[in-house]
Amino acid sequence: MTPPLRLAVAGVGNNISALLQGTYFYRGLAERLPETEFPGVLRPRIGGLSVSDVEFVAALDIHPDKVGRDLTAAVLTEPNNYPLLDTVVPDQGVLVEQGLVESHDDADLDRLAGRLREAGAEVLLYSLPTGLQWAADAYAEVALRAGLAFVNCTPESVARNEDVLRRFVAAGLPLIGDDLASHLGTSIVHRRLLQLLGERGITLESSYQLNLGGNEDFRNLREHGASKRESKLNALAGDAATLGKVEVIPSAGYVSHLRDNKVAYVNVEARGWANTPVTVELRLKVQDSSNAAGVIIDLIRVAAAAKRAGLSGYIEAVTLQLKSPAGGHHAHTDESIEASLAALDAPLAAAV
Amino acid sequence: MTPPLRLAVAGVGNNISALLQGTYFYRGLAERLPETEFPGVLRPRIGGLSVSDVEFVAALDIHPDKVGRDLTAAVLTEPNNYPLLDTVVPDQGVLVEQGLVESHDDADLDRLAGRLREAGAEVLLYSLPTGLQWAADAYAEVALRAGLAFVNCTPESVARNEDVLRRFVAAGLPLIGDDLASHLGTSIVHRRLLQLLGERGITLESSYQLNLGGNEDFRNLREHGASKRESKLNALAGDAATLGKVEVIPSAGYVSHLRDNKVAYVNVEARGWANTPVTVELRLKVQDSSNAAGVIIDLIRVAAAAKRAGLSGYIEAVTLQLKSPAGGHHAHTDESIEASLAALDAPLAAAV
Amino acid sequence: MTPPLRLAVAGVGNNISALLQGTYFYRGLAERLPETEFPGVLRPRIGGLSVSDVEFVAALDIHPDKVGRDLTAAVLTEPNNYPLLDTVVPDQGVLVEQGLVESHDDADLDRLAGRLREAGAEVLLYSLPTGLQWAADAYAEVALRAGLAFVNCTPESVARNEDVLRRFVAAGLPLIGDDLASHLGTSIVHRRLLQLLGERGITLESSYQLNLGGNEDFRNLREHGASKRESKLNALAGDAATLGKVEVIPSAGYVSHLRDNKVAYVNVEARGWANTPVTVELRLKVQDSSNAAGVIIDLIRVAAAAKRAGLSGYIEAVTLQLKSPAGGHHAHTDESIEASLAALDAPLAAAV
Amino acid sequence: MTPPLRLAVAGVGNNISALLQGTYFYRGLAERLPETEFPGVLRPRIGGLSVSDVEFVAALDIHPDKVGRDLTAAVLTEPNNYPLLDTVVPDQGVLVEQGLVESHDDADLDRLAGRLREAGAEVLLYSLPTGLQWAADAYAEVALRAGLAFVNCTPESVARNEDVLRRFVAAGLPLIGDDLASHLGTSIVHRRLLQLLGERGITLESSYQLNLGGNEDFRNLREHGASKRESKLNALAGDAATLGKVEVIPSAGYVSHLRDNKVAYVNVEARGWANTPVTVELRLKVQDSSNAAGVIIDLIRVAAAAKRAGLSGYIEAVTLQLKSPAGGHHAHTDESIEASLAALDAPLAAAV
Repeated sequence: MTPPLRLAVAGVGNNISALLQGTYFYRGLAERLPETEFPGVLRPRIGGLSVSDVEFVAALDIHPDKVGRDLTAAVLTEPNNYPLLDTVVPDQGVLVEQGLVESHDDADLDRLAGRLREAGAEVLLYSLPTGLQWAADAYAEVALRAGLAFVNCTPESVARNEDVLRRFVAAGLPLIGDDLASHLGTSIVHRRLLQLLGERGITLESSYQLNLGGNEDFRNLREHGASKRESKLNALAGDAATLGKVEVIPSAGYVSHLRDNKVAYVNVEARGWANTPVTVELRLKVQDSSNAAGVIIDLIRVAAAAKRAGLSGYIEAVTLQLKSPAGGHHAHTDESIEASLAALDAPLAAAV
Repeated sequence: MTPPLRLAVAGVGNNISALLQGTYFYRGLAERLPETEFPGVLRPRIGGLSVSDVEFVAALDIHPDKVGRDLTAAVLTEPNNYPLLDTVVPDQGVLVEQGLVESHDDADLDRLAGRLREAGAEVLLYSLPTGLQWAADAYAEVALRAGLAFVNCTPESVARNEDVLRRFVAAGLPLIGDDLASHLGTSIVHRRLLQLLGERGITLESSYQLNLGGNEDFRNLREHGASKRESKLNALAGDAATLGKVEVIPSAGYVSHLRDNKVAYVNVEARGWANTPVTVELRLKVQDSSNAAGVIIDLIRVAAAAKRAGLSGYIEAVTLQLKSPAGGHHAHTDESIEASLAALDAPLAAAV
Repeated sequence: MTPPLRLAVAGVGNNISALLQGTYFYRGLAERLPETEFPGVLRPRIGGLSVSDVEFVAALDIHPDKVGRDLTAAVLTEPNNYPLLDTVVPDQGVLVEQGLVESHDDADLDRLAGRLREAGAEVLLYSLPTGLQWAADAYAEVALRAGLAFVNCTPESVARNEDVLRRFVAAGLPLIGDDLASHLGTSIVHRRLLQLLGERGITLESSYQLNLGGNEDFRNLREHGASKRESKLNALAGDAATLGKVEVIPSAGYVSHLRDNKVAYVNVEARGWANTPVTVELRLKVQDSSNAAGVIIDLIRVAAAAKRAGLSGYIEAVTLQLKSPAGGHHAHTDESIEASLAALDAPLAAAV
Repeated sequence: MTPPLRLAVAGVGNNISALLQGTYFYRGLAERLPETEFPGVLRPRIGGLSVSDVEFVAALDIHPDKVGRDLTAAVLTEPNNYPLLDTVVPDQGVLVEQGLVESHDDADLDRLAGRLREAGAEVLLYSLPTGLQWAADAYAEVALRAGLAFVNCTPESVARNEDVLRRFVAAGLPLIGDDLASHLGTSIVHRRLLQLLGERGITLESSYQLNLGGNEDFRNLREHGASKRESKLNALAGDAATLGKVEVIPSAGYVSHLRDNKVAYVNVEARGWANTPVTVELRLKVQDSSNAAGVIIDLIRVAAAAKRAGLSGYIEAVTLQLKSPAGGHHAHTDESIEASLAALDAPLAAAV
């Protein structure tokens, strides 16, 4: 039996609500369905770990309504608005503790590292709101001092920072990041449509993509959308031909009653034979934080399995699930990604 | 200078209207745009032939309003309803001749073969309404007797018929077919969406695809849709997991005012992490016969280039543009397709 | 206290499932919400009757899997596929009885009339599949012999038949029909869009409407759609200007996994100032049988209240909820409809 | 023969491009179509004036690329991006003159008034970008001094300002405003959908409306959208029940390649019988400035006809084509609007 992954989380937002409730949902499902048939799961096992093999051992946040509450209650506390799934989630016996503030000092990092070691954590999952580079740096430092694998879900630069990466390698610790790709995001759907046009010889004329939602991410994006727009355009415009023909609106609107749902509208205007028009209109609706948790579950399992296998630094297995992997997408091939995944299962095979 | 492709057409429907008008459209466009920037064109040159290098040397049909008219007038004759493009198409000096009827005899085939030889045709393009196996057989026989390459646009079995294929090989003639894939069809868009779900670990729950249009194909399909439905389901359900979860309605409706436009609605209901819903709604609108002509232009250029290069039988270069290629899709690899394309350009390179 | 409506039903399909489950759903809701706030209810009370004041006293069907079962079990029996609502529906103590077959004789009608009298029914609701004129006639005759109000949900001609209407008047019994309008149907949404264009001076160019679903109605319609198409076109084309510009496909497809849901796509192409284009695309999704039950609940309450008030013949109060009211839509004004509704509540007011 | 309307315009943006080109488009159309069949025209004649009976006699703007050019050239000058219609628009013989700037003095108003009198203008159409209250005030003052009818297309308060209205009444001049409703706008489509739900007893759960476009209005709105959002919400939420359930995003995005097109997405989530879901998704695409010009053509004809008929102050005939009519919508009835329209045609009838 593979022992469960011992997870510490920094940030107790909707993503953690989706992750926590989801692990219990699948635990219940396992009673009547083989795990190979679990809906919404890409890989039933990574390094022997199932999607339910997660034990939350520590949780950090600074929201006064969350700190001091059991994690199970905290994930359902506003402004979190991920739905309450139809599954029983018992108290975790883990109270949310006060996280770092920007004015922390070095002793705070040490104390926190000690706390996570004491809790027996293997992996520290960094999942704070976008835009806090200082926090990403600080929690990565805590992971190093505590001897944990680190997973960065945000666009902040951590695994792409070569100094930081070198320090994780030196410490023999895995470092996973940066910026998780959605389980099924607007960008990949949009990109695949544009690629398909190119393959077929249909000429793109113009295209746009709008995203709207009702969670805190969308409220924040409405104000800080410019950098997100750049990043999403980059994700699309691999092909030089599309530059200037595609517009992306990362947060077209904060619509509170959408809650944690995300709606995207994609339009493509193109030209076929003899310049006759081709039009595609697409609407995508997803549960936004499920879209994150469905990827986080792989990132943390890869991080734990890698740590247990004695691997360190960036682990290529997660490359397709990140927007900005260490080294960039071009540094990794399908073959090297497959090999990395296989390496995580090797110790298990050896043990048999 | 590569001499233009000398084309004979069996069937003077919308597809031929799109093909004829399109060749003149691009001829006009060439005066102000390099051919590498032509909209809606996948390959500017095949075997040295541009998309305008087509000379219509013979045309066959049985519609009384078309027979006896110059091809330029005939393609605009009802029930044809492809739009009149904004380009000048001069008379072709080719009158539509009476085509074969089901009660033809062997002498008719000989006479027709003689006629096409006399016209100097290189390629016979078969583009009659779907469902006339006898006609496909007869015109293929005519091509053999006349020494022409043959291109079958329809689902009728010609290139898949091993006997027929052998006879073309023996005669040293190319045989291209069967059933052209659309330039950008509903099936490929739908399939790519379903594949993307699979890649990401999103679980398909149900999906449907509806097609509607206002040309003769849709009027016919409304009655004979069952076999088309099977063929479209096969195109989608590569993955066993989708069997029974996907419904396809090839002709949901004949809507006369859509004329030669095709509209498709695709719905995908799926499940992500923790069984939360993922929904995609897509609407595709295309000019139906442009969608055919954009592929026909490649099929006939490949046929002519192959014939000129002394190649015979099925030419792999066209495989991705056919729904039912000779030997089936699995008999051809990306590499063999590329090699086949390259072979068509080799004589030109040698000539330089 | 108004005593509950004593209802007999002919046909135990999805509509009756929606009606039965719905009455219990609202009974439960009444414990925590005032009836004026019930979702999906147009009129909380009609003649003193709430939406829960329905007692099923007899049920008739000919499906072998339904006959002999308690009504609560029968409504959930295939091919019925209305969803199981999240509410407890106890057994009704009413077994589904064998209904009439086309070869019935006069004695069968008498026996059935006796049976319904014995059950104490006030209203006979006719809700068989579309197209059985003989059955509509026979059940109306049964209602007359048993002294019941009659409600015809189907397009069959009953209330429009002046002879039949005269006999109900003579018998002092209400007759409600024909053909219920949906609670929120594609036709009314489509018509309102077209009317709006007209009001604003936007010129319609073309429009289509497609409907698809997964219940037995859609399976039947796929084959017998022509008359439904006519009826739907009539519903739209009040304005002569739209004739020939609008296409309606009542059953574009039977998609089994939609079950009792109906999806409609509506497209409108129009022209504004200087002939510039205006386009509307609309998608409507509803629970098909809820769409019927939300209207049936008013029809049967009007029927019962009218009978109790001693009114006979066609009751104008229901006119806006029927597609083909007795006398046609033009025979009834907003004022006469309002007056008819008021008359149903008058006895209650008098009693106070 | 009714003499043409002599129009002065303040602001030479897309709306004026649509208005100018449109009048010539219809002039050409009149050669082959009776005016009662003109597409996109609500009222062929108002006070005897056809949609082509407009003579542009003066034009004011401050954009350096427009000032000094003939109006025909100026309306096609960037950032204007209304399409070039397929109609010949000759030079107007009217050069765009320098308009008012915020630092103008009283003498500027006098000089401008003199200029417009000299040009023989009847109506001054105010069509500057939204948000310049000082400009609306100043141009209204110019109209008063010059003795012209005034039409305010913008949300600025002019006709709603009782002092200003009194001064126009005292001067015997018509004053039309404020804020033109679109010919077919998102608000009216959305409102009608919500009203329909209410009429049928379908309960609204939530709804949103997004608008996007590529003209200067959308670029401005992206920044100053808050007041527009309020105004649009007010337009919708006539029914108290919808307050808080509806979200409106006036400018979800500036998408430059949409140019002068506007795209709106509307979503409605509601509940029918037994709380089962009803969903409507709608996409509307219009030529934004045609949507304005199709209403402006009525506003200016009403203004001119009223002036010629000796009517002064607010003219009720235009009430349905304004978002904020003088006195508010509730001050005007269908009857008073009809009577006002009739009064404009009375002088013509008398003349016959």
